[in-house]
Amino acid sequence: MPPFHSIATICSHSALQIFDGANREGFQTIGITTEARVDFYSSFASGSPDEFLVVQNWQEVLDHSVQERLLDQNAILVPHGSFVAYVGAENILDMTVPFFGNKRTLMWEADREKERIWLKKAGINVPREFKTPHEIKTLSLVKFPGAKGGKDYFLVRSPQEFYDRIGKNEEYTIQEYIKGNRYYPHYFYSPIKNRLEILGIDRRDEANVDESYRFPVREKTFVVVGNKPLVARESILPKFYEMGVNLVATSRELFNEGIFGPFCIESVVKDDLDIVAFEISGRIVAGTNLYPNGSPYSCYYFDKPVSTGRRIAMEIKWAEKKNRIDAVTS
Amino acid sequence: MPPFHSIATICSHSALQIFDGANREGFQTIGITTEARVDFYSSFASGSPDEFLVVQNWQEVLDHSVQERLLDQNAILVPHGSFVAYVGAENILDMTVPFFGNKRTLMWEADREKERIWLKKAGINVPREFKTPHEIKTLSLVKFPGAKGGKDYFLVRSPQEFYDRIGKNEEYTIQEYIKGNRYYPHYFYSPIKNRLEILGIDRRDEANVDESYRFPVREKTFVVVGNKPLVARESILPKFYEMGVNLVATSRELFNEGIFGPFCIESVVKDDLDIVAFEISGRIVAGTNLYPNGSPYSCYYFDKPVSTGRRIAMEIKWAEKKNRIDAVTS
Amino acid sequence: MPPFHSIATICSHSALQIFDGANREGFQTIGITTEARVDFYSSFASGSPDEFLVVQNWQEVLDHSVQERLLDQNAILVPHGSFVAYVGAENILDMTVPFFGNKRTLMWEADREKERIWLKKAGINVPREFKTPHEIKTLSLVKFPGAKGGKDYFLVRSPQEFYDRIGKNEEYTIQEYIKGNRYYPHYFYSPIKNRLEILGIDRRDEANVDESYRFPVREKTFVVVGNKPLVARESILPKFYEMGVNLVATSRELFNEGIFGPFCIESVVKDDLDIVAFEISGRIVAGTNLYPNGSPYSCYYFDKPVSTGRRIAMEIKWAEKKNRIDAVTS
Repeated sequence: MPPFHSIATICSHSALQIFDGANREGFQTIGITTEARVDFYSSFASGSPDEFLVVQNWQEVLDHSVQERLLDQNAILVPHGSFVAYVGAENILDMTVPFFGNKRTLMWEADREKERIWLKKAGINVPREFKTPHEIKTLSLVKFPGAKGGKDYFLVRSPQEFYDRIGKNEEYTIQEYIKGNRYYPHYFYSPIKNRLEILGIDRRDEANVDESYRFPVREKTFVVVGNKPLVARESILPKFYEMGVNLVATSRELFNEGIFGPFCIESVVKDDLDIVAFEISGRIVAGTNLYPNGSPYSCYYFDKPVSTGRRIAMEIKWAEKKNRIDAVTS
Repeated sequence: MPPFHSIATICSHSALQIFDGANREGFQTIGITTEARVDFYSSFASGSPDEFLVVQNWQEVLDHSVQERLLDQNAILVPHGSFVAYVGAENILDMTVPFFGNKRTLMWEADREKERIWLKKAGINVPREFKTPHEIKTLSLVKFPGAKGGKDYFLVRSPQEFYDRIGKNEEYTIQEYIKGNRYYPHYFYSPIKNRLEILGIDRRDEANVDESYRFPVREKTFVVVGNKPLVARESILPKFYEMGVNLVATSRELFNEGIFGPFCIESVVKDDLDIVAFEISGRIVAGTNLYPNGSPYSCYYFDKPVSTGRRIAMEIKWAEKKNRIDAVTS
Repeated sequence: MPPFHSIATICSHSALQIFDGANREGFQTIGITTEARVDFYSSFASGSPDEFLVVQNWQEVLDHSVQERLLDQNAILVPHGSFVAYVGAENILDMTVPFFGNKRTLMWEADREKERIWLKKAGINVPREFKTPHEIKTLSLVKFPGAKGGKDYFLVRSPQEFYDRIGKNEEYTIQEYIKGNRYYPHYFYSPIKNRLEILGIDRRDEANVDESYRFPVREKTFVVVGNKPLVARESILPKFYEMGVNLVATSRELFNEGIFGPFCIESVVKDDLDIVAFEISGRIVAGTNLYPNGSPYSCYYFDKPVSTGRRIAMEIKWAEKKNRIDAVTS
């Protein structure tokens, strides 16, 4: 494979950071976007892509002509949450343009059952799940498939409350609500350095729940509108580290080369300092947008400001230098 | 006009950042202050002004002798929230010392009616306002004029509650309380680069409301005591960008050259991802104090750490180099 | 005394930052740890110590052989919250290895009565304390000795509630709960520069109280699980500065050379902008872990990213250069 000289992604989610990181590492950048977002994504310097690939709708990314154009430019695609939501994990599997990271991971993060098997196999605590609404006896969260930013999630305390709220024909998961504080560590597993890095930690900012102490709310909603920075008590970090190491190791038993590149284990730290994980994101998460200048953790690994976006570009460069590009793409 | 070699402001609000930014860009700095604050503002390196101009009270800033001294040093004044609160927007209009930004903007931000006309003309959603207390049927916030940091604001749910709380002869505004999460984007419009930048986002930290879930409070208060950093979901950013672009464009129709330099649109993001703006600050806001080293957005425009304070100094330098100082001062 | 070439601490609390700062300033670093943490602390670059000193349990730090080894390497020990909790403030007094800062300070921060005397003597407001449970008539916090991260603290509103919760033979302090927002300024007093610096501000993130608006909690708990960044309204900073200056000055009257190096005054800012301090930490606090790249305050003193960990290393270097190492150690 010739060396990649372009890094491409869809203009959304964490694209500014991905472009910025790629630009700082000397790559050309391609922003796949609808016309409506061109002005905004043009308004930056290193946050703007060098070139736009304008589509009418996101499914067009799958078109032969679009893929050909990306292949012609030796582009590597970086998937993010919106990329997966817009194009679909299964469709991504069929694409011919190389992706950074293991595309199979996207199948495992999209499927709540697979995700749960993976977490459990890695020895990570997960919330109880209730197969039927009748089992709801404690505060529980009703979730829907995919990474749609928490939209329509709701809390219930009884089967009755569940039936009052649920729509028809909806696919749902009922999880015990874990009481504690949310910590979402941003991992990066590097096959090239053979090292698991913690590049940051965030907490999602959800409307309306995270400002709900300011005003009376009839129903709490959980729509992700942003992210807030934090650091964990240092004695909790070795636990997060071990969780990440185990998740990587286990993934190799579950699907070919397993997970590599960026991922996140969305977790709750309880007041007994136990950690419960309720989600895996098998690609860059939006919480990393807090740290385009580096985070309070990335500086322990690198002498320069390294975001997850930049880390991706660095990994590609290192892999190319060592002729190991297969180790970081799929 | 000879080139400015000094940047001056009142020692309060965002002065550390303004001095630091000016110092880093090679300007001399003058701190206008009362004696009581000299020790504190002397205790820094680049955060300290090169020189103090000590006044007995803030109104002295209007004195001929003080203005003469600033003019003698080719100083440019940077207005901030405390500057406006201490000296008065109308008094600032009469001052002979040049100001960074358009002084008229301060008249528009200080007047809630003008502010509302401006926002609406720019196509930005605003909260409903109730002309008389009798219209209060939903959770509403009672606000007072000026940028006094939320002091004495209170929540009401009915006309009765309003009359129980309001003082005599008070000038007030009654606004529908918008349920959602607060995001305050920090804009910078550069006439020199002809570019609207988003230099950061913050959320105010208000006593007691923002810790009110920790203890029972009889009455929520909204006194600003600090600021917290955050980033917005990337798909919300183009909306913020458009709001800023429209606010700048509209301002030119409303008052001579319109707004330039730093401003903020204090907003709430609702759980349907709509944005409602409840305030404009037509000058540097205190939330920018989070980012003297640059923010998770400023790095997408600049290779070095750029605060709003430093951005002001950069704009002055660029304007001088292009002989366009009139475009950034008033 | 020969120049220190190693900086050593226990692998916990703020060790990553201490190692990173020491490494960046050119010191060798020694991590005292149990075997279980070696993998984690090895996984960083500048955040990893150059060398591990593996112990079976923390009391082993007091062993002659361990101390000899540290002395042989011209090591200076940096105490942090876990160091004090694991080894004990009194035991630290007896150690022969030099410590950064004044070891006596650890005795004063560990003893709530001494702490209170110190704060009051410095003219700093403190919460009311109730000598007997019968005096509880307002919301009060029951605290236990030492820096155990808020574990088991509880809120009470009446003597009855107190007796319902308290265990047998427990040593406790009952403090009036101050309503307001928590701000924990990180100070550094430099005998070498003769300057008091504010290197950052944080707020602790406590499980479950700080997410307690998201779910019903029967009992609020106050276990520290992390830290959140913030900045204070600029007009509050001179008050924090004065508190710090007074605390340093007073300490010299209370115990030999008084406090130097890093410390924190855990405070609440009330909605009348008054400040009440409820704790002193007489050494580096975990909240500084937010700022290994520098904080929104440290940049006003230094041209490079300076964490509290790095600041310690800088102070040692400067002291050695000036032959004043006695001024920064004990």
